Amino acid sequence: MDISLKERLLNTLPNCHSYAGLDPAKLADRLDALAAIGRTEAGGISRFVYTKEEKEAKELFKSWLQEIGLVVREDPLGNIFARYEGTEPSLPVVMTGSHLDTVPNGGAFDGVLGCVSSFMAIEALVKEGRKPKRSIELVVFIDEEGTRFQNGIFGSRVMMGEVLYDDLLSLQDKDGVKFVQAAREIGLQPENIEDAYYPKEDICAFLELHIEQGKQLEISNDNIGVVNGIAGTSWHTYTFYGETDHAGNTPMNLRKDSVAAAAEFIVEVEKIPPTISETAVATVGKIDVLPNGANVIAGEATVTVDARDIDEDQRDRMIELITETAKTIAKNRELKIKHESEFRIPPVKVPEPIQQAVRESADSLQLSHRPIPSGAGHDAMVLGKYVPAGMIFVPSVNGKSHSPEEFTNLNDCLDGIAVLKETLFKLSNQSTLDSKSPKSVKVES
Amino acid sequence: MDISLKERLLNTLPNCHSYAGLDPAKLADRLDALAAIGRTEAGGISRFVYTKEEKEAKELFKSWLQEIGLVVREDPLGNIFARYEGTEPSLPVVMTGSHLDTVPNGGAFDGVLGCVSSFMAIEALVKEGRKPKRSIELVVFIDEEGTRFQNGIFGSRVMMGEVLYDDLLSLQDKDGVKFVQAAREIGLQPENIEDAYYPKEDICAFLELHIEQGKQLEISNDNIGVVNGIAGTSWHTYTFYGETDHAGNTPMNLRKDSVAAAAEFIVEVEKIPPTISETAVATVGKIDVLPNGANVIAGEATVTVDARDIDEDQRDRMIELITETAKTIAKNRELKIKHESEFRIPPVKVPEPIQQAVRESADSLQLSHRPIPSGAGHDAMVLGKYVPAGMIFVPSVNGKSHSPEEFTNLNDCLDGIAVLKETLFKLSNQSTLDSKSPKSVKVES
Repeated sequence: MDISLKERLLNTLPNCHSYAGLDPAKLADRLDALAAIGRTEAGGISRFVYTKEEKEAKELFKSWLQEIGLVVREDPLGNIFARYEGTEPSLPVVMTGSHLDTVPNGGAFDGVLGCVSSFMAIEALVKEGRKPKRSIELVVFIDEEGTRFQNGIFGSRVMMGEVLYDDLLSLQDKDGVKFVQAAREIGLQPENIEDAYYPKEDICAFLELHIEQGKQLEISNDNIGVVNGIAGTSWHTYTFYGETDHAGNTPMNLRKDSVAAAAEFIVEVEKIPPTISETAVATVGKIDVLPNGANVIAGEATVTVDARDIDEDQRDRMIELITETAKTIAKNRELKIKHESEFRIPPVKVPEPIQQAVRESADSLQLSHRPIPSGAGHDAMVLGKYVPAGMIFVPSVNGKSHSPEEFTNLNDCLDGIAVLKETLFKLSNQSTLDSKSPKSVKVES
Repeated sequence: MDISLKERLLNTLPNCHSYAGLDPAKLADRLDALAAIGRTEAGGISRFVYTKEEKEAKELFKSWLQEIGLVVREDPLGNIFARYEGTEPSLPVVMTGSHLDTVPNGGAFDGVLGCVSSFMAIEALVKEGRKPKRSIELVVFIDEEGTRFQNGIFGSRVMMGEVLYDDLLSLQDKDGVKFVQAAREIGLQPENIEDAYYPKEDICAFLELHIEQGKQLEISNDNIGVVNGIAGTSWHTYTFYGETDHAGNTPMNLRKDSVAAAAEFIVEVEKIPPTISETAVATVGKIDVLPNGANVIAGEATVTVDARDIDEDQRDRMIELITETAKTIAKNRELKIKHESEFRIPPVKVPEPIQQAVRESADSLQLSHRPIPSGAGHDAMVLGKYVPAGMIFVPSVNGKSHSPEEFTNLNDCLDGIAVLKETLFKLSNQSTLDSKSPKSVKVES
């Protein structure tokens, strides 16, 4: 797979723009080298936290950082940091990075491209001898996917002080290996977790480049997605209780059919997001019917709704409408209904000054861009709760992700890195970015 | 459970009408005695073909037949026959009966009530000394439910010559016991299956009393359901193929959502039967979604439709409409669709003269009655393909069946038996019932 990945990347080498300090062939080499670590027979990549594959990828990445003269620091849980010192090193830093772990049999770009992009953006600035005012600090977060311990966006949550040592003790993988044991075995010190908490006031802004994992950029034919918010995921189950009856002996007008009610509900759920906002989405991907027999009118049908938006008020209004709809349908059909909200992760808006900086960078490079919400959660979502955080999306071929099919053309990757580089430099020269209150960020223009 | 069943039956003893030759207390005793055989801890009854429980029930039943002086015959597969000889024993018989086997943890009435009713109707005629013209022959079919060998309405199919010896050889239960071995172990001769074929021309009519297994009689408050046809079951699967996408990163207007299509289809399926006939029903009780994850737009959703009507043309028209609807929805949503018909059992209409005979009997006893389709298959459905066959339904409390909750009040059972008795006698005195062509039956009135 590594060979074909490199070949496939180099297919679009002729399409690559020329950017100072950015070598597209080297980019292909680096993505290819990381894709070789943890390769699966199914053609994907499996690299989970605290495994030898993840360690190998981190060691390779650290060696690149050291090659350009950066000092690498690893916190007690394994998050990696490397700082390109600015002319005013005492100011809060501009931070950038992503993650190197993958989902099972995942792709070669999710997380990895963000890490490599942050590295190459800094490398280019170093080569060009462009000194930022604020230091630019690269971060590689551990365990964004949460595959091994069912516990995602983990490194960023640790860094922001959301995880206590006691929280670690209950975690174990499917083979019964404890999280703390796995961490110690590769030389980390989970008991010193407090040393991994990064002072929020020392971060001026955070910026993460990521593949879109959707098709919007491909369809609108834009180079750059300027992420305007990271949608908060929320899951809600609606169980309709009807009456289990004989499919043959119960006339249509005497039925209390939970499946028919669920179907009516799903049809309505699909219509609701466009009435809320352009960024709202609601999905029914999971239905559980009891007894789920062809000749039995089902007495129970549970529909799980995944509802997201980048604005919390809008999302909550959507959930309210969905819930009212479910209740109305149940009432009209004389069924009982139970509604449970499994969780509601708060969405994070990207402060306008950060979006503005990304747009200006893209404009200066003559790259087309569009605002885009991130429907998936990312480390930037965690950082964004505490400091101004933004994201840059690059197109995903056919929107595929979390699979071996995941791909982004080399020229698209390179355009993203060029925008990231300019934006980081721009942000590093801002003098007042209020790091504590993302909603009232002020940027010098 | 047997004690409470008897007590519960005797609760309605005061409501029982008085009919010559029919003792309600004896009826309660007999239902109770059969319910004691194969009792489960869960309060139901499990009595499967060729088990000691089934044999015990049959032996008890045969002893009752012998007590009233009838000669009992058992065919090589285990169907039981006992004939109350008429004044013209060379004429084709009027046959009546049902089955003694049950579904797992089933009720005390399904099948059993039909057997006991046929027995008590004949017993009453014997006691009263009323001699029919044609002989009235009682039959107990084996294995109507098909629980053990996944092969229902079996005894009647054997009797009608639909099963060959070779067909038996492939049958085995979940423990790997072969059908033929099980049959031989309880003393039967499956290799002589041809001796079990009953000459169709020797049957003038068949009549089966059964619990409704639905709520229509209860709701309309009628004593007797005059079955006008036995709906043929047909199963059809419709698979919608969309695109598996990220629930967060795919805007509503870029989705190819198989679940939303399936839901729209289910809502439409529910509306179709009333446009076809009063007896048509269509049920979606089974949905299978892939991958069925809350945060994934599902790429595949399969809906199974159970479509029934007592008229085959009507049913086929309904299936056609349902299939067109599925295709239209798939087309409008730009999804692919696959339609497969798993099976289509032909429905059987009950010849009008038989319905008429049942109605007249009920009228003569001042019992209210209504036409009703049988949505479930029964042995009468098999017989009805070859000879004029009818059914009498009695009310099921709350429509429950195939569970320990199955119940019919004693007075309702007794009313049904009285109607069965009168109808059998009436039919046995008809001189010309065309047995070969149910659709052109002629009955002397």
